[in-house]
Amino acid sequence: MMSVIVENPSLNVWNDILERPTQKIENIEHTVLDIFADVKRNGDNAIVKYSKIFDNCTLNEFEATEDEILVASNNVSDDIKSAIAIAKQNIYKFHESQKRIYNKVETTKGVQCWQEERPIEDIAIYIPGGSAPLFSTVLMLAIPAKIAGCKSVTLLTPPDSEGKIAPEILFAANECGVNKIFKIGGIQAIAAVTLGTETVSKVSKIFGPGNQYVTVAKQLATKYGVAIDMPAGPSELLVVADDSAIPAYVASDLLSQAEHGPDSQVVLVSTSMSIVKETIKEIQKQIEKLPRKTIAQKAIDNSKFIYFDSPNDALDLINSYGPEHFIINVKDESFYVNGVINAGSVFIGNYTPESAGDYASGTNHTLPTNGYSKAYSGVNLDSFLKQITFQKITREGLVNIGSAIEVMADAEGLQAHKNAVSIRLKDL
Amino acid sequence: MMSVIVENPSLNVWNDILERPTQKIENIEHTVLDIFADVKRNGDNAIVKYSKIFDNCTLNEFEATEDEILVASNNVSDDIKSAIAIAKQNIYKFHESQKRIYNKVETTKGVQCWQEERPIEDIAIYIPGGSAPLFSTVLMLAIPAKIAGCKSVTLLTPPDSEGKIAPEILFAANECGVNKIFKIGGIQAIAAVTLGTETVSKVSKIFGPGNQYVTVAKQLATKYGVAIDMPAGPSELLVVADDSAIPAYVASDLLSQAEHGPDSQVVLVSTSMSIVKETIKEIQKQIEKLPRKTIAQKAIDNSKFIYFDSPNDALDLINSYGPEHFIINVKDESFYVNGVINAGSVFIGNYTPESAGDYASGTNHTLPTNGYSKAYSGVNLDSFLKQITFQKITREGLVNIGSAIEVMADAEGLQAHKNAVSIRLKDL
Repeated sequence: MMSVIVENPSLNVWNDILERPTQKIENIEHTVLDIFADVKRNGDNAIVKYSKIFDNCTLNEFEATEDEILVASNNVSDDIKSAIAIAKQNIYKFHESQKRIYNKVETTKGVQCWQEERPIEDIAIYIPGGSAPLFSTVLMLAIPAKIAGCKSVTLLTPPDSEGKIAPEILFAANECGVNKIFKIGGIQAIAAVTLGTETVSKVSKIFGPGNQYVTVAKQLATKYGVAIDMPAGPSELLVVADDSAIPAYVASDLLSQAEHGPDSQVVLVSTSMSIVKETIKEIQKQIEKLPRKTIAQKAIDNSKFIYFDSPNDALDLINSYGPEHFIINVKDESFYVNGVINAGSVFIGNYTPESAGDYASGTNHTLPTNGYSKAYSGVNLDSFLKQITFQKITREGLVNIGSAIEVMADAEGLQAHKNAVSIRLKDL
Repeated sequence: MMSVIVENPSLNVWNDILERPTQKIENIEHTVLDIFADVKRNGDNAIVKYSKIFDNCTLNEFEATEDEILVASNNVSDDIKSAIAIAKQNIYKFHESQKRIYNKVETTKGVQCWQEERPIEDIAIYIPGGSAPLFSTVLMLAIPAKIAGCKSVTLLTPPDSEGKIAPEILFAANECGVNKIFKIGGIQAIAAVTLGTETVSKVSKIFGPGNQYVTVAKQLATKYGVAIDMPAGPSELLVVADDSAIPAYVASDLLSQAEHGPDSQVVLVSTSMSIVKETIKEIQKQIEKLPRKTIAQKAIDNSKFIYFDSPNDALDLINSYGPEHFIINVKDESFYVNGVINAGSVFIGNYTPESAGDYASGTNHTLPTNGYSKAYSGVNLDSFLKQITFQKITREGLVNIGSAIEVMADAEGLQAHKNAVSIRLKDL
């Protein structure tokens, strides 16, 4: 293993050191466009066709039945059920606490303005397939959707070649009140909820992770007026550590990120050279026992170990990178807690591993990667709501602000805008 | 003028009646891609080139100087300055009131989770050119950006052929604390803040309206990781009225929307046939005096007048349409106020014309068109902020939720995630 330690890099090389893996998406755009066009023309028949091609599955009915959900529930172990119950309770509690109260504001006497929240009525949740069932993401997306009051929550996930989906996913979806579960994956799943087919209704917003095909499909969905949770990219973790950190713990966190995929980004920033060196040793030790060692090793080979003399430089680099996950393992936690501007989710102290937030502490694990934390929040209750502004103006209010409106409308050359005020003021 | 009144349309024809004008954007995507590629390669030189082509302007320096701002301030009338001051105060007051307080939540004993807000550090505001200077949009975007704490607010707007921009825009921008003003318009402006050039820095999020070129350019910007306020479409207004409405007022509101452009959508929904007929007569009367009569007439010709016996049907149609602007002129206001789910901004009562919200009441006028109100809020303070989640877990907390994390990570096949907990639990 090559673990190069970068010492006190100067500002002008930060971008190079922390360059994220480039995603080449142009090549697959045509495939995505073709499948969308086919789904638009042929609806369910196109879904059947692509399920055969991509999932090697010959289903003609996609919706999971009550029976399938019942059988699934019997096949999920009690341990997993209990774990899901704990995670569900914490996720519920944290997202429920995000409800807002809006006050009415009298901006000028007689002019009352306020906001009210409404749920997005119909949303879709995409859960990727693959070797293991990502049922934790079902909890992370369905629970806040239901707290927000979304009427229709549709889950889509690819079936295996026998047309089945993992019992944990069915169980979690049912527990969280998902309304419809479709065994459809990949581009065709995103096309179905974007365009609608005979059996799948179109939705207003699509949530959930996916491979590059799903990512490009979600981006195309936005051109059809469907909103998405956020743009996607490979997962990433940055740990900042000083002498108060415990190298074995830091190594375990870096490895938990590294096992996601060979393109995962793992960064250690430290003001202690001995912590850096000890952590690298611990990684070498712990990685040997991991079933996903090959994947983790590739990510670790691309990982960065950065030493800074100055915590101020460390903080600047962290904000310039904008990590999805950010672990603070230092004595003066508040320096980084108060100073962080760009990050998705922050984990503080030696007993707060990233996996707590991935599963069960209550925070959401759908977070902005790829530096998107500079402009995007992670998924939270707001992601399932929208605000409407309301205003009510009395006769007195219109007298108070009417002439300002008239002057501005006139200066912008919009006489009918002015007239809508003038015609009322004349009567007052 | 042809004004067809549709009576009690059945659900299955609502989409046809209220179909929005289609925007054909595919044809201009190549132009936008070419200009982005050129700006990426040639920076400022490309900006100079396209300013010549599109704005017939031969500027080599784009940034507005202190001197220009001073001269502009002297050229803005006192009336306009006073009007701007009133609007500014109300917009400030309403957006300032949107600040949130976040509480820490203990989801399980020893597990503390919370959110904190941070400003998006660098944003751009695009203000279109054209016959009249849209300085009201400067207020609507720069004021909340500054309340949010955005460090760098860059404004871009096309210059005239003499390289000048309207004094009202320069004055408003300076009043609101805009940091940099660039005389760059259209696709090249969006490319500059997306990619960065020698003189223009790239930003994290772009706000503001624009023609279809700007719209497509903003959509392309998202592929480069830059966020945008929301997708755009032609402006629209729906008024619901019963016998308590005043036809002359309703007509003035519909016309204020119609004068925006021939593709503006104007809809009257009513449970009173006499109000519909009187409003149509009033439109015919008022439209004669408008300087933008030709534009307004085209929009009115495409407008819809829909009569319903039942307010429930009226409400359903309104939510199915999701109007950008929604005026409620009925006796039982609360029926629609409480029942509306999809709308951008709502105006209540006979003395609350849409133009109040366009200019000076305090609410924002950057709103979701084209049915996007089903998934998007209008611009508000949140648009300039993002939330970061934080969590801090004590030893006790990790003992409480540790095994749930281990079980779930194990079931998802992620052993390193499990190990990050196990290695800590062993020490406790």
